[in-house]
Amino acid sequence: MSTFGQFLRVTTYGESHCPSVGCIVDNFPPGIPVSEEILQPQISRRRPGQNSLTTPRNEADLVSIQSGVEGGISLGTPIAMVVKNQDHRPADYKGDTMKQYPRPSHADFTYLEKYGVRASSGGGRSSARETIGRVAAGALCEHYLKLAHGIEIVAWVSSVGNIHQNPPTAEYPITSHNPKFLQLLQEVSRESVDKSPVRCPDPEVAAKMEQCIADFRDRQDSIGGTVSCVIRNVPTGLGEPVFSKLEATLAHGMLSIPATKGFEIGSGFEGTEIPGSAHNDMFIKHPDTTASGSKNGFARPTLATSTNNSGGIQGGITNGAPIFFRVAFKPPATIGLPQETVTFAGERDGLLEAKGRHDPCVVPRAVPIVEAMASIAIMDALLLQGGRRMATLSS
Amino acid sequence: MSTFGQFLRVTTYGESHCPSVGCIVDNFPPGIPVSEEILQPQISRRRPGQNSLTTPRNEADLVSIQSGVEGGISLGTPIAMVVKNQDHRPADYKGDTMKQYPRPSHADFTYLEKYGVRASSGGGRSSARETIGRVAAGALCEHYLKLAHGIEIVAWVSSVGNIHQNPPTAEYPITSHNPKFLQLLQEVSRESVDKSPVRCPDPEVAAKMEQCIADFRDRQDSIGGTVSCVIRNVPTGLGEPVFSKLEATLAHGMLSIPATKGFEIGSGFEGTEIPGSAHNDMFIKHPDTTASGSKNGFARPTLATSTNNSGGIQGGITNGAPIFFRVAFKPPATIGLPQETVTFAGERDGLLEAKGRHDPCVVPRAVPIVEAMASIAIMDALLLQGGRRMATLSS
Amino acid sequence: MSTFGQFLRVTTYGESHCPSVGCIVDNFPPGIPVSEEILQPQISRRRPGQNSLTTPRNEADLVSIQSGVEGGISLGTPIAMVVKNQDHRPADYKGDTMKQYPRPSHADFTYLEKYGVRASSGGGRSSARETIGRVAAGALCEHYLKLAHGIEIVAWVSSVGNIHQNPPTAEYPITSHNPKFLQLLQEVSRESVDKSPVRCPDPEVAAKMEQCIADFRDRQDSIGGTVSCVIRNVPTGLGEPVFSKLEATLAHGMLSIPATKGFEIGSGFEGTEIPGSAHNDMFIKHPDTTASGSKNGFARPTLATSTNNSGGIQGGITNGAPIFFRVAFKPPATIGLPQETVTFAGERDGLLEAKGRHDPCVVPRAVPIVEAMASIAIMDALLLQGGRRMATLSS
Amino acid sequence: MSTFGQFLRVTTYGESHCPSVGCIVDNFPPGIPVSEEILQPQISRRRPGQNSLTTPRNEADLVSIQSGVEGGISLGTPIAMVVKNQDHRPADYKGDTMKQYPRPSHADFTYLEKYGVRASSGGGRSSARETIGRVAAGALCEHYLKLAHGIEIVAWVSSVGNIHQNPPTAEYPITSHNPKFLQLLQEVSRESVDKSPVRCPDPEVAAKMEQCIADFRDRQDSIGGTVSCVIRNVPTGLGEPVFSKLEATLAHGMLSIPATKGFEIGSGFEGTEIPGSAHNDMFIKHPDTTASGSKNGFARPTLATSTNNSGGIQGGITNGAPIFFRVAFKPPATIGLPQETVTFAGERDGLLEAKGRHDPCVVPRAVPIVEAMASIAIMDALLLQGGRRMATLSS
Repeated sequence: MSTFGQFLRVTTYGESHCPSVGCIVDNFPPGIPVSEEILQPQISRRRPGQNSLTTPRNEADLVSIQSGVEGGISLGTPIAMVVKNQDHRPADYKGDTMKQYPRPSHADFTYLEKYGVRASSGGGRSSARETIGRVAAGALCEHYLKLAHGIEIVAWVSSVGNIHQNPPTAEYPITSHNPKFLQLLQEVSRESVDKSPVRCPDPEVAAKMEQCIADFRDRQDSIGGTVSCVIRNVPTGLGEPVFSKLEATLAHGMLSIPATKGFEIGSGFEGTEIPGSAHNDMFIKHPDTTASGSKNGFARPTLATSTNNSGGIQGGITNGAPIFFRVAFKPPATIGLPQETVTFAGERDGLLEAKGRHDPCVVPRAVPIVEAMASIAIMDALLLQGGRRMATLSS
Repeated sequence: MSTFGQFLRVTTYGESHCPSVGCIVDNFPPGIPVSEEILQPQISRRRPGQNSLTTPRNEADLVSIQSGVEGGISLGTPIAMVVKNQDHRPADYKGDTMKQYPRPSHADFTYLEKYGVRASSGGGRSSARETIGRVAAGALCEHYLKLAHGIEIVAWVSSVGNIHQNPPTAEYPITSHNPKFLQLLQEVSRESVDKSPVRCPDPEVAAKMEQCIADFRDRQDSIGGTVSCVIRNVPTGLGEPVFSKLEATLAHGMLSIPATKGFEIGSGFEGTEIPGSAHNDMFIKHPDTTASGSKNGFARPTLATSTNNSGGIQGGITNGAPIFFRVAFKPPATIGLPQETVTFAGERDGLLEAKGRHDPCVVPRAVPIVEAMASIAIMDALLLQGGRRMATLSS
Repeated sequence: MSTFGQFLRVTTYGESHCPSVGCIVDNFPPGIPVSEEILQPQISRRRPGQNSLTTPRNEADLVSIQSGVEGGISLGTPIAMVVKNQDHRPADYKGDTMKQYPRPSHADFTYLEKYGVRASSGGGRSSARETIGRVAAGALCEHYLKLAHGIEIVAWVSSVGNIHQNPPTAEYPITSHNPKFLQLLQEVSRESVDKSPVRCPDPEVAAKMEQCIADFRDRQDSIGGTVSCVIRNVPTGLGEPVFSKLEATLAHGMLSIPATKGFEIGSGFEGTEIPGSAHNDMFIKHPDTTASGSKNGFARPTLATSTNNSGGIQGGITNGAPIFFRVAFKPPATIGLPQETVTFAGERDGLLEAKGRHDPCVVPRAVPIVEAMASIAIMDALLLQGGRRMATLSS
Repeated sequence: MSTFGQFLRVTTYGESHCPSVGCIVDNFPPGIPVSEEILQPQISRRRPGQNSLTTPRNEADLVSIQSGVEGGISLGTPIAMVVKNQDHRPADYKGDTMKQYPRPSHADFTYLEKYGVRASSGGGRSSARETIGRVAAGALCEHYLKLAHGIEIVAWVSSVGNIHQNPPTAEYPITSHNPKFLQLLQEVSRESVDKSPVRCPDPEVAAKMEQCIADFRDRQDSIGGTVSCVIRNVPTGLGEPVFSKLEATLAHGMLSIPATKGFEIGSGFEGTEIPGSAHNDMFIKHPDTTASGSKNGFARPTLATSTNNSGGIQGGITNGAPIFFRVAFKPPATIGLPQETVTFAGERDGLLEAKGRHDPCVVPRAVPIVEAMASIAIMDALLLQGGRRMATLSS
């Protein structure tokens, strides 16, 4: 299915070699200032070829709003957004060879098994270009969340290969206990992330990551990594038990991004190894006295927690603490190194070598995509809970 | 929302202290032999008090089919299933104290923030009892998948605290490269899993896990762990790009289970640290010559892969290899150790001590729940792809 | 599919000869007083055998709430409701004969074509008993709508055969222009409807309708009719363009009721025959000066219309005027008169005669079912618009 | 909501004065030949200004496929279709006057009540231009239905004002009993419909209808009418009990078309006035001996009915007979005659006179829109049932 969200619904379309890619965002609230200028920065951030670490293809990727906005104000009707594909023709890597050979760990084979026909790009909608529609929709949602609730969503590269920004230490075997990490959650900003091309806010680690990616690039190989994300200033009460728990919706959104292999929230996999007595987040009186009162119909909580192993979500519902999670991205499947393979018919007679230049590592470009999916998931949860609160007040 | 699935739709209801819990399964195919006897084993497997490691509450949990089945055959109409709650009254741990204090890392606080009212159990639908409806629905789906396609779904406890069944080794830093692990994926059965109360198929590791859980139990503390799951004999072509990629749907289902903190598929987080050249799964001619032809409308693939870092899914679509994934469960929040806390009003004056006996570790009981959510997700994907294939043949 | 509604979602289950029928209502607001006593009256109103005009089967039909309510207050979690089937065994009309012959204009044939298996009742979920789940859910919604917004929903029998309560007259060829009809829309109450067993609020017409039904009953034949419905005090702004226009959702709900053949809103089919100049509803200042201000977040309109050919909905959205519509019900297919038919195999050798007593006319019993579907549709629209308003206020 | 359909999902966007209107069709089957040439005829048929009876605006309305099709073959991925709006600027009738006055029986008032902001066209998505996306999607579905199953969908104008094509007669008070009407159902074709500009296949009646419309046009007034539609060669078994009964889905689709006020299927409202003994459709052996065997997975039925008061649907499921229904359209609200009205603020001081030329009757242009919604509804039902059949075969 090509739709994400239950109240705020995003439907995307498009593959690599069709006239355009884009999306329709349904049920975006009316009366919100919206313009292409607000959306373009995130779309530009996901564009390839921004630096020597990523594919130097020249894609302008200018977003155009087709509907739902008049005079710079949203009408409440569906907002369609379109980005033209510069090149409709099959690209280099789609020559005769690829027509006979499924590329290893790409979606060439599975798309053919599923649909019985094959797009010229092989993997159809598994193309990274499909993510443009998500980023456009996500930028729209993020804009609303910031405007209406001051919500901040920031993602960054937390590891490349085995270079980790906040590895477990002897003192803090669990990252979510590490004060340095907790401080980062409070402070990390899009500006600090974008200071390095690798999009890691720690300059020293970023330098190592860049070197690592450059090494794999030079070896015609590729490497994976992780993207972490924090969502601050989220109202309490978001997330719909039981099947739309917020962590479930976030996991769904993240694992729908190409090349992802894992998701963990709060203490994550590390949290499975410590005792409950160390993992439980103790309640305290909310320290922010200005947090009382309500904002746009959402009351501020009276309680906070002294730790945040829960990652801001308990029982599938936000507790007001920062939400943070981490997403695993595998190494890109397209590499210059020769790889033995067989034809679609199963004959072993081939070596596959990708020509041209390819991303040796996707995580820097994945940062705005992770932010986009987080924005859509949070906004959907916000609208659903808003509907409930409105109905509850009514009684 | 309380519904999971798009074609095969499962809607659950119920909390700890209401008359019953259960579910409605919509769009289950007609003409399938169905009985309560087929469903009961999985429901009994999730029951607490099966051994000294888990809560010794006496819950019979007999499932009763209410509709959609006549003469032991499914009608194609909604199948409602009900399990009575033995005890409708507030339990021990729901005394005066709990009414004033939100239990740390439980959903007491967030449910109140969300709904403005509180169930007697505090966390409403965050109760483990809610999972009965899922297990009933999952058992139904698993039964169909086995019958119609020979699909096998087996989950097991792969770690308790820091005791791992298949830890990374010097030779195999990536578990999905470890031949011993790959053999386990082929061989693990529900029988081998149930040999130990801790539900780890490796007897030596199981013994250590049991000891670990017993230690935490004796210390009035708790510990987390992971559950792994393999799905064998899956047809190719399942999973709906782009937002219902099969790994996304599986992640969604798993993170909707109470106490989960993470999900990884195939090489997972480990896979982010190895080169693409080592991660790519090379295509080979399918070794199983009996796999040609088709089964129930789903053709068997001509290709397989020599490795399986993808975990059976590429581009969100199954490639016919075993699907395997791992789910992280945090340590249970309810512990006997005293914990400082504050009242709902934010006054710091309390110590919370859980009375009675509580699960020191949930992963053994989580095994059938993981299997249930996997079954539902796979069956939904199967029906969706079946609809497509039928439409495609029609052209 | 067995679910109706997008935000407020009702999923029903059950057929004639299974243990129970019922439903799950998801996303009902928390904090609302709810009890079985509130729901039972509507369920009892749809029960057969309430008088000599309808089937005298003895069905107690007591509703039991299974979840989502504690201490008489809704929790915001799914509310499951169950009504036991008194008789699980195949009934009289399900003897050998029916097994060979599809009953004319029943769903015996089409259910078998669709599902390939047959329920003992022949038509599976086409049984009138299926509507119990809807009526339970509708009673819950109606209760909320009344409590939160003072919304009143009243349906009544507007025709039986060719006996019409408000036939077109020379003076008023269009019913929606007839002052007597407009007054009825303002005044009709459940009490005035229930004064006659036929559920027509006009005693004289009701007497003729009763006689008409009795005649058809005595002739072992059956007759159809129409049910009209008015919804008063609806806030403006309900209905979601473009595919969930309120009239579309109402039509969907009504045509999902067994035996329905038509739906018209406002001026309906008659309205197609008059000029636009006579059909347009002119705007006037809202006459009710107490209508200013807002109620539970929904502002009262400043404008009203001097006529109401629109039936309270313009562009798919409520304008604050009473919503009224009419639903056509065909004559019941089960009659005592002998009917020639063929076996499922196509052999012409049979006469079908229904034994026992059957409803000669369904419209009196359809009244609470129409009210139920209207209640669910309105509440869903209200919650969706509430979510939007909440989001809009936030900007 | 802007999405219609559960498996085959159509999401539309756009209003009168934005850059484009269009839609995304999700889950269209792969491997189907698709081109803009196939879609354009229906889009052109709904275009205004095709003759003197309708608005002479010059809208080229060329559809452009954006995605999901390569080399003229559908990929199975979302098919986005776009039609540019020629004129983004506010039109004549959107001058100062309209900004102060809500047009009677338009959606100006209700859109403002709902969204709090107003599109320059007043009624936002209530514009007839919104229907282009539906017609594009419908043309795509119709093409598939014809290709895969030989299904034919034809709509025509069955009445304008009080001029009816097949009025009840003394001999046949019920239209569905009238042999002339039944013959029309078998024979009516798009060609015979398009012979007259008014789109009534009976030349004599068409001439009267044209005169009627011309009279209303000359009087600066408007008139309503009805559109009837037949769907031939539908497989048995389509339609999903209980809330997606096919007649419910058709009613939903039809009532979502602007200006509709009613829907009736088969015998419709007339059918409420005849006895069950005359209304029941008797089963006979299927007369078409070539109908045995199966087509594209859907078996042909062994039984037919001797009459068709059911309109091809029984219990919400197709029985193989032609489906036919009728839709009521009100007279257009925009008329040249002066109308008294009040400002949005409720001040009575205005006369509204529409300038320029406007459609005096919408039914001729509504014909392809009715066909479009029917096509989408049938295709969705077909895919759902296909998924079930595939799953059933599997058992």
